[in-house]
Amino acid sequence: MGMGAPVQSLELGGSDGGAFEEYLDDCRQRVLDEIRAILPDTRRPGGRLYELMLDYPLRGGKALRPALAIATCRALGGHLEAVLRTAAVLELYHNAFLIHDDVEDGSELRRSEQTLHRLHGVPIAVNVGDGMLAASMAPLLENIELVGLGRALRILQVVARMARESAEGQMIELDWVRSADWTPIDRAYLRMIYKKTAWYTFLAPVCAGAIAAGAGAATERTLVRFATPLGIAFQIQDDVLNLSAGPERYGKELLGDLWEGKHTLILIEAVRSASDAERTRAREALAKPRAAKTAEDVAFLSGLIERARAVDYALAVARRHSERAARSFARLARELAPSPHRDFLAGLVAYVVERDR
Amino acid sequence: MGMGAPVQSLELGGSDGGAFEEYLDDCRQRVLDEIRAILPDTRRPGGRLYELMLDYPLRGGKALRPALAIATCRALGGHLEAVLRTAAVLELYHNAFLIHDDVEDGSELRRSEQTLHRLHGVPIAVNVGDGMLAASMAPLLENIELVGLGRALRILQVVARMARESAEGQMIELDWVRSADWTPIDRAYLRMIYKKTAWYTFLAPVCAGAIAAGAGAATERTLVRFATPLGIAFQIQDDVLNLSAGPERYGKELLGDLWEGKHTLILIEAVRSASDAERTRAREALAKPRAAKTAEDVAFLSGLIERARAVDYALAVARRHSERAARSFARLARELAPSPHRDFLAGLVAYVVERDR
Repeated sequence: MGMGAPVQSLELGGSDGGAFEEYLDDCRQRVLDEIRAILPDTRRPGGRLYELMLDYPLRGGKALRPALAIATCRALGGHLEAVLRTAAVLELYHNAFLIHDDVEDGSELRRSEQTLHRLHGVPIAVNVGDGMLAASMAPLLENIELVGLGRALRILQVVARMARESAEGQMIELDWVRSADWTPIDRAYLRMIYKKTAWYTFLAPVCAGAIAAGAGAATERTLVRFATPLGIAFQIQDDVLNLSAGPERYGKELLGDLWEGKHTLILIEAVRSASDAERTRAREALAKPRAAKTAEDVAFLSGLIERARAVDYALAVARRHSERAARSFARLARELAPSPHRDFLAGLVAYVVERDR
Repeated sequence: MGMGAPVQSLELGGSDGGAFEEYLDDCRQRVLDEIRAILPDTRRPGGRLYELMLDYPLRGGKALRPALAIATCRALGGHLEAVLRTAAVLELYHNAFLIHDDVEDGSELRRSEQTLHRLHGVPIAVNVGDGMLAASMAPLLENIELVGLGRALRILQVVARMARESAEGQMIELDWVRSADWTPIDRAYLRMIYKKTAWYTFLAPVCAGAIAAGAGAATERTLVRFATPLGIAFQIQDDVLNLSAGPERYGKELLGDLWEGKHTLILIEAVRSASDAERTRAREALAKPRAAKTAEDVAFLSGLIERARAVDYALAVARRHSERAARSFARLARELAPSPHRDFLAGLVAYVVERDR
């Protein structure tokens, strides 16, 4: 089933091989159409803003977040129409975060192309991100017509918390980078990625999907117990991919986290396992601004990681979290009728720890 | 009456001399207290975000926008409680825009101190601005308890439009700067500042204040006819102050607009009045990135402005708009009982064109 029949697969499903990727692709097409529908006209004054908003989404990201919202809603018996607009808003938020993250991290590549601020300058990139956050508000208010007042307001509350958690998580990470603080322990790292990644990538989509479907509080709680460990496993896997994936698959700069001095479980474990002298040298290398770091610095850090088997350590933590997610899903699945949407949710656990991009 | 009795003046009023500045000061104190009350606890993980959010507001801005919302609501017979939270959110938005604007413009000073990105780096500054937009959502939802569902939703719609108009206006301006396009005519400039400045500084506060007070659509329309020309006069006056105010009053870099190559009515008129050769030289100077501009370039532009009497030209346009605002206010004032809030609104017209900071 190709791009030409997105409606069909979402409505009727199909659980043949490769169904997981097809489900993602189909959701992506629907969500891109919905984003185009909810954004103001590009021909109005200042409308170039809306052209630039479409750049990252059209580069072919996975659209994981909207697919998760759609699958949750549909698996719980909700209609596509009840969740599609919210799913599109989640994808807009995600891409706004990416644009600002790329500015904040000084990143050069996003989805294998130049980052927005490299193409158009930091000023325009910051403003396009702001514009995306602004453009998300009206569709969430218009949700009232689609899902009724109570559900629309609860979805707004979820989005408000999502935005807050993301900014707090980002603040923790930026503070660590800026102060070159390498004392964080695993628990602090896990809390940081819970806020920075898990909330907007997994918790907000499942909560919004459940609300759109009219699910009860107990179901929502089970979904949160599914989404939280999955989000943590997802970010750890992302850290691993940054060190080992081929850039043509990953779409970002390989070893970018080392160049940026980002705090990952891998680096925390490597620094922790090093000798005192090595630890001092590692901290000095990590404290350097990106432009001052040398290939030798990065090679030294890579060596520490290898010797400490820090990637294996991080993967074991990811695995523990994904297993917890699988157990939560097993409890949840008993409440769900068989459907391609339930299959997609079930497939997520394996996807998160096995994905190569 | 000093800082010690802010409640009294807002509740009971007082129309002695200096009442306009006192009204602003009193609103400012109430709004700062409200901002502290609605922001999450600074002691939570990532809570440094909320400390940094308070930096700009505490630097002693005018808090014009919340005062305008409060005065509009109170002049129309509404209660302070109905508008205070919304007023605090408008001030948060304003300061978030300032933080991102300072990043986008590469500005060095804000309210006579270093800009946030100079103090903490661009990454943290971008994220603090994002966090402020995020932190504004929950209080606007909680507004339902204060003003009821219908009014709370209409205020949310006003804030959504405000955020969108601001981003569109900013996009128009950044595109002009980036492309070094000096063809804009007065009408395009006026439309740009309507979006970039007038909407969030004047239209959103009066609309939100009117909604909080439960005013009818006709009153809101008159308020818009008052706020729109006033917002335009305000931005033109700001452009004039950038060229002529003492920096200790203005709190920003003097001649910053020339260094940044910003499009103001003054420069548009100066470039338009220049000879062909001068126009070519002016465009070359304006197209240079800030760091490449020389003091000679800026002196050349200043000379063109002086010879064209472009400041007088801009002031005449501002005056026409403020007179239009005064006529709209006269119509509005007939509906309003005498009160310090009505006096504040009446005083705004003179303030906008006479202010020196």
